[in-house]
Amino acid sequence: MHASDFIATKRDGKEHSRESIRAWFQMIHTGEATDDQIAAWLMAVYLRGMTEAELYAITDDMVHSGDVIDLSGIPGIIVDKHSTGGVGDTTTLVTGPLVASLGIPFAKMSGRGLGHTGGTLDKLASIPGLRTELQEEEFVDQVRRMHLAVAGQTGTLVPADKKLYALRDVTATIDAIPLIASSIMSKKLAVGADKILLDVKVGSGAFMQDPDRAIELAGTMAKIGARFSKETVCLITAMEEPLGDFVGNALEVYEAIRILRGEKEGPLLTVSIALAAEELILADKETNIERATERVRAQIANGAAYKKFLEMVQEQDGDTSFVEKPEKLRKARFQIPVKAEKDGIIEKIDARLTGEAALELGSGRLKKDDVLDLDVGIERKLRSGTPVQKGDVIAVLYANDEKRGAESAKILQSAITIGEGAAQKPLIFAKVTDTDVFYTESATR
Amino acid sequence: MHASDFIATKRDGKEHSRESIRAWFQMIHTGEATDDQIAAWLMAVYLRGMTEAELYAITDDMVHSGDVIDLSGIPGIIVDKHSTGGVGDTTTLVTGPLVASLGIPFAKMSGRGLGHTGGTLDKLASIPGLRTELQEEEFVDQVRRMHLAVAGQTGTLVPADKKLYALRDVTATIDAIPLIASSIMSKKLAVGADKILLDVKVGSGAFMQDPDRAIELAGTMAKIGARFSKETVCLITAMEEPLGDFVGNALEVYEAIRILRGEKEGPLLTVSIALAAEELILADKETNIERATERVRAQIANGAAYKKFLEMVQEQDGDTSFVEKPEKLRKARFQIPVKAEKDGIIEKIDARLTGEAALELGSGRLKKDDVLDLDVGIERKLRSGTPVQKGDVIAVLYANDEKRGAESAKILQSAITIGEGAAQKPLIFAKVTDTDVFYTESATR
Repeated sequence: MHASDFIATKRDGKEHSRESIRAWFQMIHTGEATDDQIAAWLMAVYLRGMTEAELYAITDDMVHSGDVIDLSGIPGIIVDKHSTGGVGDTTTLVTGPLVASLGIPFAKMSGRGLGHTGGTLDKLASIPGLRTELQEEEFVDQVRRMHLAVAGQTGTLVPADKKLYALRDVTATIDAIPLIASSIMSKKLAVGADKILLDVKVGSGAFMQDPDRAIELAGTMAKIGARFSKETVCLITAMEEPLGDFVGNALEVYEAIRILRGEKEGPLLTVSIALAAEELILADKETNIERATERVRAQIANGAAYKKFLEMVQEQDGDTSFVEKPEKLRKARFQIPVKAEKDGIIEKIDARLTGEAALELGSGRLKKDDVLDLDVGIERKLRSGTPVQKGDVIAVLYANDEKRGAESAKILQSAITIGEGAAQKPLIFAKVTDTDVFYTESATR
Repeated sequence: MHASDFIATKRDGKEHSRESIRAWFQMIHTGEATDDQIAAWLMAVYLRGMTEAELYAITDDMVHSGDVIDLSGIPGIIVDKHSTGGVGDTTTLVTGPLVASLGIPFAKMSGRGLGHTGGTLDKLASIPGLRTELQEEEFVDQVRRMHLAVAGQTGTLVPADKKLYALRDVTATIDAIPLIASSIMSKKLAVGADKILLDVKVGSGAFMQDPDRAIELAGTMAKIGARFSKETVCLITAMEEPLGDFVGNALEVYEAIRILRGEKEGPLLTVSIALAAEELILADKETNIERATERVRAQIANGAAYKKFLEMVQEQDGDTSFVEKPEKLRKARFQIPVKAEKDGIIEKIDARLTGEAALELGSGRLKKDDVLDLDVGIERKLRSGTPVQKGDVIAVLYANDEKRGAESAKILQSAITIGEGAAQKPLIFAKVTDTDVFYTESATR
């Protein structure tokens, strides 16, 4: 097969055969297919789309381009929860302890953040000593013993996706549903869980800006999961505003701990509970979603979820005093208030701009090798829907550099809209499986 | 401007602004736009097309990416004749002497062949001593004195096209009309002639397989020419079968000389005369095409065209004994007959496969650096439409290697269709200007 013939097939809107896709990924692996050829193909895929058969084939070949993790040593049904990425999105640190405290294994291989969205490994790094570089055996053993581990990926997972993603990033071909779906699902399938729970974010701070497209993406991913015999359920959740009240690595851990201790409520808790309840259903521990939700919620009230988190930090050699006294996680040098510029009702605090304000403080990476400042970030004091008077403090910046703090305050100010009060969008839009879409009526906040 | 934003514009089917196109070519020049980004953009252009304004802008920027030749030192209207490339297509060596012998300047900057189509410079290299690397001044001076020069390009013409063409070649984006049209026209505009005459080939041995697409390409190129104030006329001519009866470098020069001496007729002569007559009209030396054709044809009968060719070879230091005794150009070691496999009428001798048979003998390049065997090639003894009996010799291969000769014979055999006799297609389909298409009725053969 010539690379140019393969590209021409997609260019002309025809379907790739199973064999030709296998040969193509082999050519990508050996370097016979060059970056410019892959880029041209990606653009053809962007504009021509893919059939389901093609989608399954490329996902399969991406999964097998690298190592596949073996979690079969862990008894029970393992559900891999994954978020498509958002701002102030710390659900892993809340949902994980919630389900693990009910005896359900939560084995999470997590990544580092890029751009305006954070990564769980970066957040956990703010607890001194905590190791996230666990070997596969140690990881499996820990989940078997205490049902909970959060660690970095071991081995070389899905190198073909790394290659394609780097090219998509520079060639304006990120935002194509078949490419996003196969990229996410190949990484999930390589991790070796039994079932997959996806939190697909929609809004300014997410990949997807539009609920319909998010639902289409979710359905595509659920179909891929079903095709590979891994039941996949997706919740479509709001990312117009930051999910948590804190944005920034140590600050998000601080909020998660406060939530686990029952000291804090809000959209982050709501979504974390919804995800945990879906995990119970997927893990065959419950059949009724209301009962599942009740059982999960009780794990906060009875202290079990907090205790489970503490136990994990101890097991992974983290300094537990930071969990027991979470205020130790708030140590940036300067606190800069951001105030209401007029009277009115807060209509929106934009997620993307909040993420960019945090990035300006140093909380995230623009490039892979950027060094983070774990202590900086943003605290949202007032949520949208709240009436304010000019001068009221809406948010506080935690900065270590006054100049960057001032720059960040400008960005954050631009994220805030004050008006006569806009209709609030629902927090959870829909639940999507490989066959159905269930829209939620409730705009739970 | 970010490269990915520029790509996204075309991806989404929107129009590039004049300024953004200029910035893009600047980024290509500096290397800021990477090959994979250019490749993704080319695929987007392939699938989304271009507006006329975009087409003119990219042609303009490609012309000015390198040197522009100055032919203003040559008196009279200079018409640059160019063929889009075919098999056995030696019209330059016939048309050039025809028009030059009438006192009309014929200043031809030619290229080398690639793939199954030959290049005029390679053909001329079979005349020992003949120099085609003329300096611009020498070239201009020769045309001024004797109205005829055929030479290689001087300077660095249209480097942006070289870059884009190399990428199109490997990314299945060759065959897009805006890209072909801007590529050809940027090279023609950089050569600095006053008017342009294009021979757009259509058929198996050409870029374009379909007359309607060839006419669309021709119209697009004529419009570009008009936009840059260089009147452009295109003839659409057949390339289902080789144009000449000989394919191969020295053999094609042999045929051209025989034609110029009035010893041979056929489709190559017919097309060469039609092109020469159009040149007369474009050069304002004649207004009536029938009269122009008569005047051109007379230059063969009276020996003036042959004399002009001989004069050019002498001027460029070529060994004129090869022109005076053209049989000296037939010196391959083996002659291998290819015979009719059954009784019937020759319906077709396919151009592309004949070109590939010649390529197998060593007459052409697959890669830029391949070394040619100038002596090898193919002679068509019988044209399509001729009745044959099994065993009749249809063609003869001229080979220097028995094994490659045997392989080539197989390919050539597959090029020949014998049946009950198919309708012959016209040799010249249409004449295309920036405003009109004139279809020909005549199927002159």
